[in-house]
Amino acid sequence: MVKKEKRTELSELGEFGLINHLTKDIKARHKETVTGVGDDAAILDYGGKHIVVTSDLLMEGIHFDLMYFPLKHLGYKAVTVNLSDIYAMNGHARQIIISIALSAKFSLEQVEEIYRGIKLACEKYDVDIAGGDTTSSMTGMAINITALGEVVPGSAVYRSGAANNDIICVSGNLGASYMGLQILEREKKIFIDNPEVKPELEGYDYVLERQLKPEARKDIVELLAAREIVPTSMIDISDGLSSEINHICTNSEAGCRLFTGHIPIDRETEKVAGEMKIEPLMAALNGGEDYELLFTVRPDDYKKIEDIPQIKAIGHITPVSDGLNLVSPEGSIIKLRSGGWNAMGKKES
Amino acid sequence: MVKKEKRTELSELGEFGLINHLTKDIKARHKETVTGVGDDAAILDYGGKHIVVTSDLLMEGIHFDLMYFPLKHLGYKAVTVNLSDIYAMNGHARQIIISIALSAKFSLEQVEEIYRGIKLACEKYDVDIAGGDTTSSMTGMAINITALGEVVPGSAVYRSGAANNDIICVSGNLGASYMGLQILEREKKIFIDNPEVKPELEGYDYVLERQLKPEARKDIVELLAAREIVPTSMIDISDGLSSEINHICTNSEAGCRLFTGHIPIDRETEKVAGEMKIEPLMAALNGGEDYELLFTVRPDDYKKIEDIPQIKAIGHITPVSDGLNLVSPEGSIIKLRSGGWNAMGKKES
Repeated sequence: MVKKEKRTELSELGEFGLINHLTKDIKARHKETVTGVGDDAAILDYGGKHIVVTSDLLMEGIHFDLMYFPLKHLGYKAVTVNLSDIYAMNGHARQIIISIALSAKFSLEQVEEIYRGIKLACEKYDVDIAGGDTTSSMTGMAINITALGEVVPGSAVYRSGAANNDIICVSGNLGASYMGLQILEREKKIFIDNPEVKPELEGYDYVLERQLKPEARKDIVELLAAREIVPTSMIDISDGLSSEINHICTNSEAGCRLFTGHIPIDRETEKVAGEMKIEPLMAALNGGEDYELLFTVRPDDYKKIEDIPQIKAIGHITPVSDGLNLVSPEGSIIKLRSGGWNAMGKKES
Repeated sequence: MVKKEKRTELSELGEFGLINHLTKDIKARHKETVTGVGDDAAILDYGGKHIVVTSDLLMEGIHFDLMYFPLKHLGYKAVTVNLSDIYAMNGHARQIIISIALSAKFSLEQVEEIYRGIKLACEKYDVDIAGGDTTSSMTGMAINITALGEVVPGSAVYRSGAANNDIICVSGNLGASYMGLQILEREKKIFIDNPEVKPELEGYDYVLERQLKPEARKDIVELLAAREIVPTSMIDISDGLSSEINHICTNSEAGCRLFTGHIPIDRETEKVAGEMKIEPLMAALNGGEDYELLFTVRPDDYKKIEDIPQIKAIGHITPVSDGLNLVSPEGSIIKLRSGGWNAMGKKES
C-alpha cells in the first residue's frame, strides 16, 4: 500500500553514505551520551563511569553462508566481531546480550551449537552473557549481539584523533580471512556443481580459521595499556585496511602514506593468493574481516612499542591536502582507493 | 553439510522453553553482572551505577507485516517496545542503538520514514540515539534495537519479588492492540482477494493506534516514584496478561487470583471484539502487545496509589499451592491457562 513516490536506491548512497545520511542530524540531548553515532561503539557516561556499547546485526546470506559456516564457529565469530568494536575504542569488554531469529528448519541441537560457540568466546574473552533471546524468522537466520564494556574516562580512542606525523600501526596480519573466504566459496561452487566431490579444505587451516573463527585483539589493548600508550586514533579492520584508514583520515581531517612493503601479510595468505591468482596486497587492502586493530600513535610513543612483534608500523599521517597514498617499495606513489567490502553493494571511492 | 544427527524441533520446547534451555547453565562470571538472563532487561553494575540494558530483534513477517504497517509507525514501535522493557525494571531509559537490515527493494525514502518514527519516539521519551547502523538483507527486513537506561540501586523491580497477599495491578487497558491486529488482518485478506476494494479502517482508530503505535508506560514508573512506591514485581505485557502473570508467579513461586470483572478493557475494544465475534476477555488475557505494566505492590502500598486512574487492581497473590486462578464476577473459579502469543508457535501450558 505504498504510494508512488520519489525513489532513491540505497545502492546510490552505499553503506557508509546511507548511515551518514540517516544519522547526520542526530544530536545527543543528554551530556551523558559522550559519543553517539559515527565510531566503532558509543560511549555513555553513567555517573562518571564510561560505558562502551556496540551492536551488530548479522544476516544469513550476507554476513555468513550456512552452506559452509559451522554453527559453533558462527556463534564464536558473532561474539568476537562485536568485542573487536569494544577493543577498537580502547575499552574492556564485560557483557554481551544475544538475540537470535530462527526459522523452523533449525533444530534445538543446531541452536545449541551456536550457543556453544558463543559461550566458548565468552569464556576466552572473560565476558558474561547478560541476556539471551530467541525468536522466529520467516526465512533466514539473524543474529544480533550487543557488547558492553568499560573505558577509563579520558582514554577512549576515536577515529578522529590522528595528527600529522603520527605513526600508523596495525596488529597481526591482513588478508588471510579474505583468502579463507575465497577457498570456501570455491569449494561451495564445486560442491553445488557436483555434490559427490568432497570439499578440499586441507592445507588451508590458517586462512580458514581466520575467516571462520576470528579473534578480537584484546591482547593489543592490554599491551598498549601496559606500556602506558594511548593511541591517537583506532579502528578495527572489518571492511579492509583501505576502508578503515579512510575512516581515520576522514574523521581526523588528515592524509596518509601507507608503505605497501610494510603491510603484514602471512606466508599462508600469500601462498593461497598465488594459487587463487589474487594479488596478496589487494586481499590485505580490500579483503576485510581481519578484525585486527589499525591505530595511530605519536612518533615518540612508537618507540615504546616498536619491539612488540604483533604490531607493525605501516605508514604515517600527513596533512589532509596530501590525500591518501600508497608508497611502493620502489618509492612510487599511487592514490589509495578505498574499495573495502561494502554491505550495501557499492564501492566507496 | 550437516551430518544426520538427533533432531529436536524447536516447536517442542516453545519460545520460553527454548530460552530457558539455552540459558539455564549460564552463570555470571563477574559480580558486576547483577542480573543477567531471565527478566525484561539485564542489570549491570558499573562503578555503583546500575545500568539497565535490553535488546529486541524484530523480524518482518513475524513481528510486523509491511502490507499494512506504515514504516514510520514501525520505527516508532520498535523503539517503544524496547523502552517498555526498561520501564518494566523500574528503570529510566537514556539511549538506544539501532541496527536495521534491508533488502535492495527498499528505497532511501522508505528508510527515512523508519528513522522518522524512531526519532519521534526518541523525542517523546527523551532518549538519545547513540548508534545507528544499516546492513543488507537477502530477504525480509530485520530491526534490532538495544535500549539502555539507569535504575537507582536497590529499586530495580524483577519478576521474582511478588509475595502472598500482594495486590496485582495493571496500567491502562488490555486487548486493544490485539483487536487492532484482527482488523488489519481482516482488511489485508479482503485486499488480497480483491485489490479494488479499499480497506475499511475508519472508526477503528483507537485499536489500530494501540497496535501500530503503542506507547511505553514511562508515566507509570514516574507516578510510582513520585509516591515512593517500589513494586514487589513488575513485567510489561508483550505476550498477553495470562503469559505475563505466569512469569511473575513462576519466578516468585506464588499463585494468584485475577478477578475477570476488574480487568480493564476499553469500550472500543469491546465494540470491535463484538463485531469480530471474539470474547473481549480472551483478547485481554491472550492478545498481547499491550505494552502496559503488570506489577504487584504490598497491600499497604496499594492504598497510596488506588486513586490513580491509570492503574487498576485486578487481583492478588496467593500461595503457590493455589495455582493461577481466574475469578468470575459471580465468584466461580477457573484455572488460568497461559495461552499468550508465543513467537515459537507453541502455546505454553
